[in-house]
Amino acid sequence: MLLLTPGPVQTRPETRAAMAVDIAPWDPDFGREYTMIRERVRDIAGGMAGVHATLPLQGAGHFVVEAAIRTFVPSAGRILVVSNGAYGERMTRLAREAGREPVVLAVPDTRGVLAEEVAEALAADPAISHVGMVYSETGSGVVNDPAAVGAAVRAAGRRLIVDAVSAFGALPFDLKAQPECDVVLFTSNKCLEGLPGIGFAVCPMERTRERAGLAGSWSFDLGDVLRHAERSGWGSFRFTPPVQALHAFGVAMEAYLAEGGQPARLARYTENMRVLRAGAERLGLRPYLDAAHQGPIILTLHQPEAPGFTLAGFVEALKRRGVLISNFYTTPTPTIRIGCIGAVTPDDMRFALGAMAGVLDELGVTRRAA
Amino acid sequence: MLLLTPGPVQTRPETRAAMAVDIAPWDPDFGREYTMIRERVRDIAGGMAGVHATLPLQGAGHFVVEAAIRTFVPSAGRILVVSNGAYGERMTRLAREAGREPVVLAVPDTRGVLAEEVAEALAADPAISHVGMVYSETGSGVVNDPAAVGAAVRAAGRRLIVDAVSAFGALPFDLKAQPECDVVLFTSNKCLEGLPGIGFAVCPMERTRERAGLAGSWSFDLGDVLRHAERSGWGSFRFTPPVQALHAFGVAMEAYLAEGGQPARLARYTENMRVLRAGAERLGLRPYLDAAHQGPIILTLHQPEAPGFTLAGFVEALKRRGVLISNFYTTPTPTIRIGCIGAVTPDDMRFALGAMAGVLDELGVTRRAA
Repeated sequence: MLLLTPGPVQTRPETRAAMAVDIAPWDPDFGREYTMIRERVRDIAGGMAGVHATLPLQGAGHFVVEAAIRTFVPSAGRILVVSNGAYGERMTRLAREAGREPVVLAVPDTRGVLAEEVAEALAADPAISHVGMVYSETGSGVVNDPAAVGAAVRAAGRRLIVDAVSAFGALPFDLKAQPECDVVLFTSNKCLEGLPGIGFAVCPMERTRERAGLAGSWSFDLGDVLRHAERSGWGSFRFTPPVQALHAFGVAMEAYLAEGGQPARLARYTENMRVLRAGAERLGLRPYLDAAHQGPIILTLHQPEAPGFTLAGFVEALKRRGVLISNFYTTPTPTIRIGCIGAVTPDDMRFALGAMAGVLDELGVTRRAA
Repeated sequence: MLLLTPGPVQTRPETRAAMAVDIAPWDPDFGREYTMIRERVRDIAGGMAGVHATLPLQGAGHFVVEAAIRTFVPSAGRILVVSNGAYGERMTRLAREAGREPVVLAVPDTRGVLAEEVAEALAADPAISHVGMVYSETGSGVVNDPAAVGAAVRAAGRRLIVDAVSAFGALPFDLKAQPECDVVLFTSNKCLEGLPGIGFAVCPMERTRERAGLAGSWSFDLGDVLRHAERSGWGSFRFTPPVQALHAFGVAMEAYLAEGGQPARLARYTENMRVLRAGAERLGLRPYLDAAHQGPIILTLHQPEAPGFTLAGFVEALKRRGVLISNFYTTPTPTIRIGCIGAVTPDDMRFALGAMAGVLDELGVTRRAA
């Protein structure tokens, strides 16, 4: 089965094989591996040794996003949330239920936010301390630019929180060039091609230390995660980690570096997207985003308006042909979502296009262009 | 390597082999498996179809304990926490930082709490709505009795939260006989012998529905977990699950049922403990708990007062002989902790005792009794 979901992604055989092992998380052998993982992650984020720390948090990406908001945005404080998709909406809800006051900057899900829009919203409301943004929206596939947004945030003297869950490791990020950034967030199971179970925050240590004890939740206090790691002398975890997912993540990161790191990964995903998008268009499927706004992570296509087409039926028929795509959508109008990330290549995209052509014929929906 | 830690535990080969697979969590094939897991878990908890629900929460056991407190104890409400070990202390901190008011019922970590002690504390403070207790403390290995405590809670017209993390599946629990119980909590990687990554709450559905939206955290709102599952039509997850850990948990539960379920698992662990405790005493190592208070999950031993003995040195030397035990302790005085749970047998305990004898000789600490 070829997984072309927006994540969890398809992994390499050696990565998933690393899951099948019992590990005592506090054993020094694992501790050394865990230290290397944190250092490599910090480097990928553009963090600096002694200045930035990698803080892992068990669970789904939402958890580490809530933890970041609780840790850095003061209780009852105001955060501007850039909202051009499902994950911006979720960040808004996470902030509100955590007792912070989200101010929504609504942007169409067909384009990235403009730095001017952020600057304007910040100028209008001096009580906003933070801006929260999603780097790559897995709803439509649109990408926002954290460097451009960050410059506006910096100019306004505010702080930035970047949800880079579906972008990190493929799209570039340079924490040391963004001193306004409190935290960049991601998970094990997206562009770094590990398996799910753990989220990561990369943060400036000094600010994070100052915020310990203020999250209103022990579980979600990134300041306490850092404090605990520093007190242990070797960066120990708080609480039992999903240690197999971490071990496999280490293996996945070896493959990442061997492939050539972020530029190589972005190049592969970009080529995956080019092949898939062009092929889908040849099949008569219309992309949700204009080419100028298409990110390399997720291709979202309008569902064909044709009798006999249902998303469930399309997904099921594709699965019979060996390709598994997402079976739900979060855009305002009905769409199909196909991931271009994970241990997959342009040839896999060609295989998927062949399967899609067969399914469309089978469903009598459309004919391929000549 | 033989893992005798208090968890994550040693697993069966077929359980950990099930980790090495890519799965799309929202695929209907996995959905069927996931439904069966939730039904089996509910049955093991003594829950009833249509009355009780299994609610999984990504991450460590602490997370599902915080979620239970937030969901069931009103904001600023008062919870009596039975505290006879590290996990009682942690529950106190989780409650306090979540904005609930913990009232600590301090009990020595060498015995279980008495129902009368709970009754007395509740009579003294009518503002307490809930009692929180740990079933098996992995600090000392002492066990509290949720049925006896529950009866006192019921008589006082209050509600019960049971952290059964290191007990569930081995020690008996019968939710339908404890109508005062809002929730019983546990994780994948203890007595059910799965791998870490996910916590579970089993709750009465009606009460849980009523509490949706009141947790002060979207991530930790068990009412919303239930609402989302019910709305989806098939019990869907909120957010990406550690799907490999769930899949392996399903395999582990097959083995659990094949072994004979809770009575069989308790019998094996009890025999593990009997062999280990008797053997340790023969080696001159003194148990932390009296025999009458010894639970079957964790054996805690006083560290020998002898020159040349350090816990780190002992653990390292045991590891060289193929046995991995915990390398830290949480009792007030220095101890050694050895787990009797996981896919391990009395013969494994005999092997571990042989290794311990060799290490004690090697360290020149003590001699075996004749």
